[in-house]
Amino acid sequence: MIDINKAIEQLDWNREPRGLYEPIEYTLASGGKRLRPTLALIAADAIINGGLINGDRMDDVLPAALALEVFHNFTLLHDDVMDKADVRRGRPTVHVKWNDNTAILSGDQMLIEAYKLLAGVPDDKLPTVLRWFNEMATGICEGQQYDVDFERAGQVSIDDYLKMIELKTAVLLANAMRIGGYIAGANKVEQEALYQYGLHIGMAFQIQDDILDVYGDPKTFGKAIGGDICSNKKTFLLLTAMENADAESKAELLAWMLVTDRNEEKIAAITAIYDRLGVRAAGETVMEQHTAEALAQLDKLPQNAATESLRDLAEQLVTRKS
Amino acid sequence: MIDINKAIEQLDWNREPRGLYEPIEYTLASGGKRLRPTLALIAADAIINGGLINGDRMDDVLPAALALEVFHNFTLLHDDVMDKADVRRGRPTVHVKWNDNTAILSGDQMLIEAYKLLAGVPDDKLPTVLRWFNEMATGICEGQQYDVDFERAGQVSIDDYLKMIELKTAVLLANAMRIGGYIAGANKVEQEALYQYGLHIGMAFQIQDDILDVYGDPKTFGKAIGGDICSNKKTFLLLTAMENADAESKAELLAWMLVTDRNEEKIAAITAIYDRLGVRAAGETVMEQHTAEALAQLDKLPQNAATESLRDLAEQLVTRKS
Repeated sequence: MIDINKAIEQLDWNREPRGLYEPIEYTLASGGKRLRPTLALIAADAIINGGLINGDRMDDVLPAALALEVFHNFTLLHDDVMDKADVRRGRPTVHVKWNDNTAILSGDQMLIEAYKLLAGVPDDKLPTVLRWFNEMATGICEGQQYDVDFERAGQVSIDDYLKMIELKTAVLLANAMRIGGYIAGANKVEQEALYQYGLHIGMAFQIQDDILDVYGDPKTFGKAIGGDICSNKKTFLLLTAMENADAESKAELLAWMLVTDRNEEKIAAITAIYDRLGVRAAGETVMEQHTAEALAQLDKLPQNAATESLRDLAEQLVTRKS
Repeated sequence: MIDINKAIEQLDWNREPRGLYEPIEYTLASGGKRLRPTLALIAADAIINGGLINGDRMDDVLPAALALEVFHNFTLLHDDVMDKADVRRGRPTVHVKWNDNTAILSGDQMLIEAYKLLAGVPDDKLPTVLRWFNEMATGICEGQQYDVDFERAGQVSIDDYLKMIELKTAVLLANAMRIGGYIAGANKVEQEALYQYGLHIGMAFQIQDDILDVYGDPKTFGKAIGGDICSNKKTFLLLTAMENADAESKAELLAWMLVTDRNEEKIAAITAIYDRLGVRAAGETVMEQHTAEALAQLDKLPQNAATESLRDLAEQLVTRKS
């Protein structure tokens, strides 16, 4: 496989005006898992049966893979402005290092840069890829808006929550898979299998995130445990607890949500309620269902080293610690 | 010709979540000249010799024309956040009516919507149109960044200024013309003529804007005269004055630029300096050169009612009062 980090490093941002391009370079240089372009490349590799290395089609797939990564980083840049987040991947965010206006304008340009990379998709594949990319981008903005709406909403159902994380996270992974595979020549059945695989691992990934925030190992998790509890974030766990709780537990939960100055105590108390109501197990069940769905899709693809690594990836998800 | 306002009204924004789509609908419903889609349609009409009405090709050109208008309105939406502008076309701006975060996210979605409309361009024309559209979008972000940089810069040359307005304004009109014509079947010579026409009327338009801000008729101009002078905006007039001024006039100009509390007096004094240095005539000369260049391009196109209206448009530019 090609080195996606190297390909990202090789993108040339040495252009004028510097005030527009430096923040883009800074954002892309800050690392991250590079999950989306990696998924696109593995999907393509699965379809061409491991023939991606040095193959002609590498050049066909790489622009779209890079477009996905640039797009993802654009969403982080603007999300950080909207969330007033000061730190991302251990470094000051763009709006802190520069200012809000720079973050807005460089973010806009980053979105345009994603489309510029996408324009490198072979002409005969471009119309379909552009439509999928637009659909995905729309899903992410809609998901972000629902996320904002839910923060203010009195009541959010688990179904609403699942729809939101599907739009905000899973649809991007699904399209990364489908776009990579399609450019490599996947047929309709394979395209759909790749899409569904991405969608289901996206759902599993996000629910696991909610679980780790409460039940993760502080040594390996990378951030403080209980952040979602402190901020009353409407996670899968909290919504499940609210739905499953008897009157007494519900009252207890609501009372704790008014507490903002006793974090350690609040985390311990709400975790105890979660334990009592079995919400961790409920989350793990849903997560395992999605993982199983993702794995089932792989049977519809050529069986090779690439599909094997997709199998490993799905299985690692269920057991990951950070 | 089709009614572009009606086509814009017919865009369907009745989608969920409302918090994302209402501000888009609001922005597009606020009117404006619809200059960019109109140019795209007239360019197409010029190429098909007035055969656009009810012609099959109308459906081919309209999506790109709408994409240009949605894109333009996206730039206004984000510009208003960055400029902290409270009013646009007589109505509260989105970030005032809603908030900054809404303006950022709905603006992002509007940019994506422009690309969704663009994806309606016939498949065989889409790759080229997408590349031009990306080039244009990049120019506008670069122009915006230069504009910000120039506000802070001690010295800006007239050439730098002309480059900035080319990127920020003229490149969009140029691409509107070229894209409209290309979809309608323009050959390479015609594509270039359409592009150059749009570029030159864009330059003329922007310089005329600077002149009208000082020398416009208060009755027809629509906003207060002298706004640029009060805010020390580095317009074509101010930069020309600084470049042409003797030591004494230069000192006088710089002294007035420190004054922020005597606007009427400042406007009168700086206008007097402009009159003395002949900067209005200098601006009109450059504007007329661009208009002449634009008109010359029209000789390379089929001669019909559409080219005639492009001729009228260029000539109206030089004499417009608002």
